[in-house]
Amino acid sequence: MTPHASPDDNQSAPEPGERRQVSRRGVLGIAGAGLVALGASAATGYAAGRRDPEPAPASRSYPLTGEHQPGITTPAQDRLHFATFDLLTDDRDDVVALLRAWTAAADRMMRGLPAGELGPTSGPYDAPPDDTGETEDLDASHLTITVGFGPSFFTDADGAPRFGLDGRRPALLEDLPHFPADALEDARCGGDIAVQACADDPQVAVHAIRNLARLAFGTASVRWSQLGYGRTSTTSTSQSTPRNLFGFKDGTANVKAEEPEALEQHVWVQPEDAGRRPDDATSSDPAPDDAWLAGGSYLVARRIRMTIETWDRSSLREQETVTGRTKASGAPLSGGDEHTEPDFSRTGRDDVPLIDPASHVALAHPSANGGARLLRRGYNYTDGSDGLGRLDAGLFFLCYVRDPARQYVPMQNTLARDDLMSEYLRHTGSGLWAVPPGLPDGSTTGGADGAYLGQTLFET
Amino acid sequence: MTPHASPDDNQSAPEPGERRQVSRRGVLGIAGAGLVALGASAATGYAAGRRDPEPAPASRSYPLTGEHQPGITTPAQDRLHFATFDLLTDDRDDVVALLRAWTAAADRMMRGLPAGELGPTSGPYDAPPDDTGETEDLDASHLTITVGFGPSFFTDADGAPRFGLDGRRPALLEDLPHFPADALEDARCGGDIAVQACADDPQVAVHAIRNLARLAFGTASVRWSQLGYGRTSTTSTSQSTPRNLFGFKDGTANVKAEEPEALEQHVWVQPEDAGRRPDDATSSDPAPDDAWLAGGSYLVARRIRMTIETWDRSSLREQETVTGRTKASGAPLSGGDEHTEPDFSRTGRDDVPLIDPASHVALAHPSANGGARLLRRGYNYTDGSDGLGRLDAGLFFLCYVRDPARQYVPMQNTLARDDLMSEYLRHTGSGLWAVPPGLPDGSTTGGADGAYLGQTLFET
Repeated sequence: MTPHASPDDNQSAPEPGERRQVSRRGVLGIAGAGLVALGASAATGYAAGRRDPEPAPASRSYPLTGEHQPGITTPAQDRLHFATFDLLTDDRDDVVALLRAWTAAADRMMRGLPAGELGPTSGPYDAPPDDTGETEDLDASHLTITVGFGPSFFTDADGAPRFGLDGRRPALLEDLPHFPADALEDARCGGDIAVQACADDPQVAVHAIRNLARLAFGTASVRWSQLGYGRTSTTSTSQSTPRNLFGFKDGTANVKAEEPEALEQHVWVQPEDAGRRPDDATSSDPAPDDAWLAGGSYLVARRIRMTIETWDRSSLREQETVTGRTKASGAPLSGGDEHTEPDFSRTGRDDVPLIDPASHVALAHPSANGGARLLRRGYNYTDGSDGLGRLDAGLFFLCYVRDPARQYVPMQNTLARDDLMSEYLRHTGSGLWAVPPGLPDGSTTGGADGAYLGQTLFET
Repeated sequence: MTPHASPDDNQSAPEPGERRQVSRRGVLGIAGAGLVALGASAATGYAAGRRDPEPAPASRSYPLTGEHQPGITTPAQDRLHFATFDLLTDDRDDVVALLRAWTAAADRMMRGLPAGELGPTSGPYDAPPDDTGETEDLDASHLTITVGFGPSFFTDADGAPRFGLDGRRPALLEDLPHFPADALEDARCGGDIAVQACADDPQVAVHAIRNLARLAFGTASVRWSQLGYGRTSTTSTSQSTPRNLFGFKDGTANVKAEEPEALEQHVWVQPEDAGRRPDDATSSDPAPDDAWLAGGSYLVARRIRMTIETWDRSSLREQETVTGRTKASGAPLSGGDEHTEPDFSRTGRDDVPLIDPASHVALAHPSANGGARLLRRGYNYTDGSDGLGRLDAGLFFLCYVRDPARQYVPMQNTLARDDLMSEYLRHTGSGLWAVPPGLPDGSTTGGADGAYLGQTLFET
């Protein structure tokens, strides 16, 4: 996906808040400027008349359209609001209408526009506004909105199909298995639909989820949500490597946007994947009718609490041994710099490997996982404290994979069982969603004819 | 307080993350550069030798010293991590040692340095690092750290003095009264010490609280903490007005740094305030020995949850009536623009006042509160959802006042009882702390002789 702004624009992008040059009002065009003037001079009432529904994309704006959904290979933004929704309806038409409305609103918000009109322009003043307003003075802030469907979207608790989607559920879309030492909280797991909103301003990301929730009123409600404030992944070679709350660089070895072959191999569901079942499938059921997912991906979310206070009292030696990298530079303990490939064969005194075979870098490395790689897109989180004087803080792990059963599940089994780092981690939330492909270039959104996310599932 | 960076520097300040030009490493000077090189080339071990303990202040850095503590009139930064701590010790020397250690670490972190050495330079490699590391590549990001002492700092639950502070508790420092419709959660109230960390990067604010908590291990532990992601106040005329989660501009009528007389009148405790008791005091106790607080202030914190979903379904008319301002421009409903003084006498059709007398702007206005003004410094918060599909979101209200009994308490009683907005609010957390004055210009911090926050309380 190509941002409208050049990388150089990113380098000099303004800060959140008052330093913005281009605000939502700034991109509204002449009709919008009229509204501002009226709003400033009239104590009551808003101008009738429509804003331009398709303004030129503002700076710091990504398009919604493209072969794949935005927010996957997009350079990881700084802030996250992630939410899952449960559907409250049995009616397929309601679900399609919701997806249409969400797609149109996502399209607008990603352009830096309100989700709808802030003031009623064609309805009564006594109607609620069609946007909640708190980003009215902010720009698009590189907002991306990414939508996925969970196992419970397709089948109910008894395994019966929902919304007429008989046979459409991908066989790989199963609830993740129980991993060693999982400490999952039901209120942080699953959900019929997942929505990932990423932006460089948290107010923009929260606004996006809030307005989708508002549009869903009566059709779907928020199941759980999570804020992340610091990215822990690098999805483009143009980005520097951030640090997680262990204080170590994270995301050095990620699959990146500049590796098209690796993306096809590890991230995007391919046309030939249609009908595939997990390698351990024993069922005699027919292969799933899931060609609709080609060009999509699978999203894994794990809320991983770190035992911050214990970690902070461990020695630097312990921290580096557990991680397999130095804390200062992020170089593997086998030598070099951050981007040097770890050399697991290199030994030091007494022929002891410089990188512990049970370190995180050793066990997460593709060489220990049959060549499997993930596109990670995680965020640091801090959710207050836990009543025992400990911060509830850690990593909200997100990754996109072509095949969760081959790529994520075996790796997480290994890590949960053997990784030295596991002593300092507790997985408290979890979910898996199938992420449909993007909207074809040139699509228009809105109204009864607009293109919508998930259209291939319902209409092909 | 004067920032080291000019306002123009603020305008073009780089974004968080990879866009930073000046990192902590960048300000470490020659010794630091050596450490980087060593960290990059050596798999184990860190250079011996001290970093420059007093580097030139980096850009985006405020000084800790000054007549008043930083973080009050400082232009409100974009992000907040607020925490309160309870003391675990009965020993006055432990408390003074903690305040010395915190002051030295705050001084370093506000300069963009680690709280201590990332790698042990004089101790064993088998010791924990003296900084947790996650801001190693970030600059100071306008970090400010502000410390206050709650009622429970001075007296225990039985009213007996702690730490030999007999008679030193200001008479105005009392737990806030119960206000109408309070829905306080004990786990979000009070605390012996409050620490407000504000910065333009959330990772920097969280890092600051975390490292103070680490330094406090065994002496004090976190009681509760709160993240805020979007400022809702304007503390300087150089800032534009942000929006709260009702979607309205907030903080228009704040006391600002450019009003020195108003600050003396409404924010800073004056020398002549020493010994004062609340107007309704009936006790025959002697006047408190609290001259130590001159130059300080009182901090009120209120966690105010907004019933977002209800608000979002209310009409624009209702929202504007409740607020008393237009949503688009923030102008009072009596006309003009955002900065026009509201005219409560102006009427419309049928002689109905254009601004409802029970609106928020009417009841919070100084004219309805005996001229009382507050220096507000609040933040938007979103803490996930509540299990019923509703976002747990709202305003983390912070304000600084010279006299909480005259300025905050009567206003909040009026608002809680009569404000139309109260229908959409629930106060879930609360606290009051006495904020001591700043460190004299030219003070040095660190070691047994360093100046420390709270020194006037313990040593005058």
